[in-house]
Amino acid sequence: MSHQTRVNSERLLMRLDDFAAIGATPAGGVNRQALSVKDREARRLLVELALARGFQVFQDPIANLFIRRDGTRGDLPPFLIGSHLDSQPTGGRFDGALGTLAAFEVLESLEDAGIETDAPLELVAWTNEEGSHFSPGCMGSMAFSLKEIPNEWGDLLGSNGERFSEELQATLEALPQVQMRPLGFPIAGYLELHIEQGPSLERENIPIGIVYGIQGTRWLEVTITGQASHAGTTALSFRRDPMTAAVAALKTLFDTVMPQDEEARFTIGRFAVEPGSVNAIPGSVTFTVDLRHPDTESLNQLEALIVKTCAEAATSAGCKAQSRRLFDMPPAAFPEELLACLDRAAEGQALTTKRMLSGAFHDALFVNRIAPAAMIFVPCRDGLSHNEAEYVEPAHSIAGAQMLLASTLEALASFGRKSG
Amino acid sequence: MSHQTRVNSERLLMRLDDFAAIGATPAGGVNRQALSVKDREARRLLVELALARGFQVFQDPIANLFIRRDGTRGDLPPFLIGSHLDSQPTGGRFDGALGTLAAFEVLESLEDAGIETDAPLELVAWTNEEGSHFSPGCMGSMAFSLKEIPNEWGDLLGSNGERFSEELQATLEALPQVQMRPLGFPIAGYLELHIEQGPSLERENIPIGIVYGIQGTRWLEVTITGQASHAGTTALSFRRDPMTAAVAALKTLFDTVMPQDEEARFTIGRFAVEPGSVNAIPGSVTFTVDLRHPDTESLNQLEALIVKTCAEAATSAGCKAQSRRLFDMPPAAFPEELLACLDRAAEGQALTTKRMLSGAFHDALFVNRIAPAAMIFVPCRDGLSHNEAEYVEPAHSIAGAQMLLASTLEALASFGRKSG
Repeated sequence: MSHQTRVNSERLLMRLDDFAAIGATPAGGVNRQALSVKDREARRLLVELALARGFQVFQDPIANLFIRRDGTRGDLPPFLIGSHLDSQPTGGRFDGALGTLAAFEVLESLEDAGIETDAPLELVAWTNEEGSHFSPGCMGSMAFSLKEIPNEWGDLLGSNGERFSEELQATLEALPQVQMRPLGFPIAGYLELHIEQGPSLERENIPIGIVYGIQGTRWLEVTITGQASHAGTTALSFRRDPMTAAVAALKTLFDTVMPQDEEARFTIGRFAVEPGSVNAIPGSVTFTVDLRHPDTESLNQLEALIVKTCAEAATSAGCKAQSRRLFDMPPAAFPEELLACLDRAAEGQALTTKRMLSGAFHDALFVNRIAPAAMIFVPCRDGLSHNEAEYVEPAHSIAGAQMLLASTLEALASFGRKSG
Repeated sequence: MSHQTRVNSERLLMRLDDFAAIGATPAGGVNRQALSVKDREARRLLVELALARGFQVFQDPIANLFIRRDGTRGDLPPFLIGSHLDSQPTGGRFDGALGTLAAFEVLESLEDAGIETDAPLELVAWTNEEGSHFSPGCMGSMAFSLKEIPNEWGDLLGSNGERFSEELQATLEALPQVQMRPLGFPIAGYLELHIEQGPSLERENIPIGIVYGIQGTRWLEVTITGQASHAGTTALSFRRDPMTAAVAALKTLFDTVMPQDEEARFTIGRFAVEPGSVNAIPGSVTFTVDLRHPDTESLNQLEALIVKTCAEAATSAGCKAQSRRLFDMPPAAFPEELLACLDRAAEGQALTTKRMLSGAFHDALFVNRIAPAAMIFVPCRDGLSHNEAEYVEPAHSIAGAQMLLASTLEALASFGRKSG
């Protein structure tokens, strides 16, 4: 029975240590930003390990890296498992690396156990998930799902002024032994193991989250314009103070958006005041809204509520509000048939799970646009991520890899026999 | 009768033009910052005009400039009238200059009419009222009221890195013909004409404001600290969001402080968020409070309310608030006996007046600590000041000067016979 196959715990933990050494920071984190020299070093190590096990290796024009374990039927599209190898500049050892190395462990464990699959199974390490070195993030999975590299990326500059096109080319050329492949070939499905990057699994003491979707995200910028004036000489009735308007609008929104809808997330992360003098009533205030919800219609309604609330508060204060969208990422809902495979896998492994939503983006969001995708979360300490102190208990890393192995076998049984 | 003496309107308007040419900016304002070359040029012109009329001229160690018209009794302390000649870097033609030149017009008008006074009458042009070139403002009147130059001013650097002590010395030396005098000699009283720098006289169509006091001002800085966290992955119950706390506290304060006390002024002029990312719940927010009130006890109560409201809102959001005072300027209440002189003067001139409070600081605030002081306001267009577009109708400048002349004669009759 497939659920008796077990991952090699020691090998997985050793691999995590080996990759954490590439770009290691003094504070115990990693700096392995996308397309950097350290990112290339990690890719090279993974390719060497793959070739040593007799797997095939490919990369596509956006430098997504694929490690293929053949199935018995060459006519079937591969099923993908993986994550990303790039990190934040002061990132942790597990964000991306755990999912990539657990996927490699799945390939090796199947090889060790001599288990044959019908469809080929491929590890994928997506390019530039983090988006800190070159923006936007999730470039690899986005280009894969679009089957092309967006034109506007050609002129992108990195956070230190590097040219994206040059760094991409150098990254591809750093693996001369690896065959090129087109973008966006047919796949049977995709599974990604990742750390939660939030506190809920740890607090509820649940080792495995089965992620049923990814919240949609909208970023808005709201500017409220009034009249700058002297703080001392301007009586209340003469004030057109955009700060009063912003505070009134935000009070209403903090009191309603999240309290009335537990799936909604509403965050004000930036707030700027002009002219910004202690003794001047502001002429304008500008703030950003990060709005998230798993449901597009709710996002539409909440965005309309935000725009209306700001406009009304502005009018009441003799000011004007302008809102514009900075960013719009529609939500992803992972298919129930694939989630059912994960439920069965967990049952077979006697792992406690909860169904949960991802608050952060992941490559799975983009892959889900072209094939069935789903994610597995494991707890991280204090919910901390994008931080050098990021930490995952060894037992949780191992349980996550075991869950990925069992889920992959369940998914291959359901999805691995369909032609692409 | 003294109220039949009239100022020379044409001469006053000509003087306003002549001084507006010193440091004139292309946009029609003036840049005549304290102790600068242009400030020295304006002082020199005033001294030349004074000496040509046979007045005596003095300066003190902080470069306050005094122009004296003798009285019949040399044993009496002088009564002072005046304002300041320095401007903001992009300042207007009237802020300070109107009060100084109207005071000079009073001296000249008395001279023209051959009116003798018992006490000497002196024009004063206080040094560095604006505080934009060297901070703090009101240096001249502050040092005069303290009878010394505060030690800490010795090392001050200006907005372009100039040494205060050197620029002060150069300013004093630019008038070699002027006699030196000690700081803070006895005076009988002080009157200052100034533009309102606010909109109320213009909107109520009243030509003269009789200023009964100057608001006290306190500046606070409030920091609310919570926990920075991911906007997408952190559910409401896990948030310790200092923005929520700040918004709740400020909503309460905007709804109470000014609406419940029409003499209070409450302004949030600066607001900073850390880390300031669109998709990060802030770790901390810091804002400034500009709080003003004519009554010290009310300032104390309002400051306590602000501190308490912020602390409670912070606690409710799982955050902590810290408040500290950045600045504290006690209020000034001008003596009723001197205000009554102004009322009588206005009546004699058939000028409509209103009693009003000054929202901005003025030199009169400091002078009032050592002698009876009061102020006269005239309207300025749209309440605009500290701005090159600052404008006063000629009729209002003339009415202000006439009011200053009549008020000076009334004040001399009441205060000019008391020895200092």
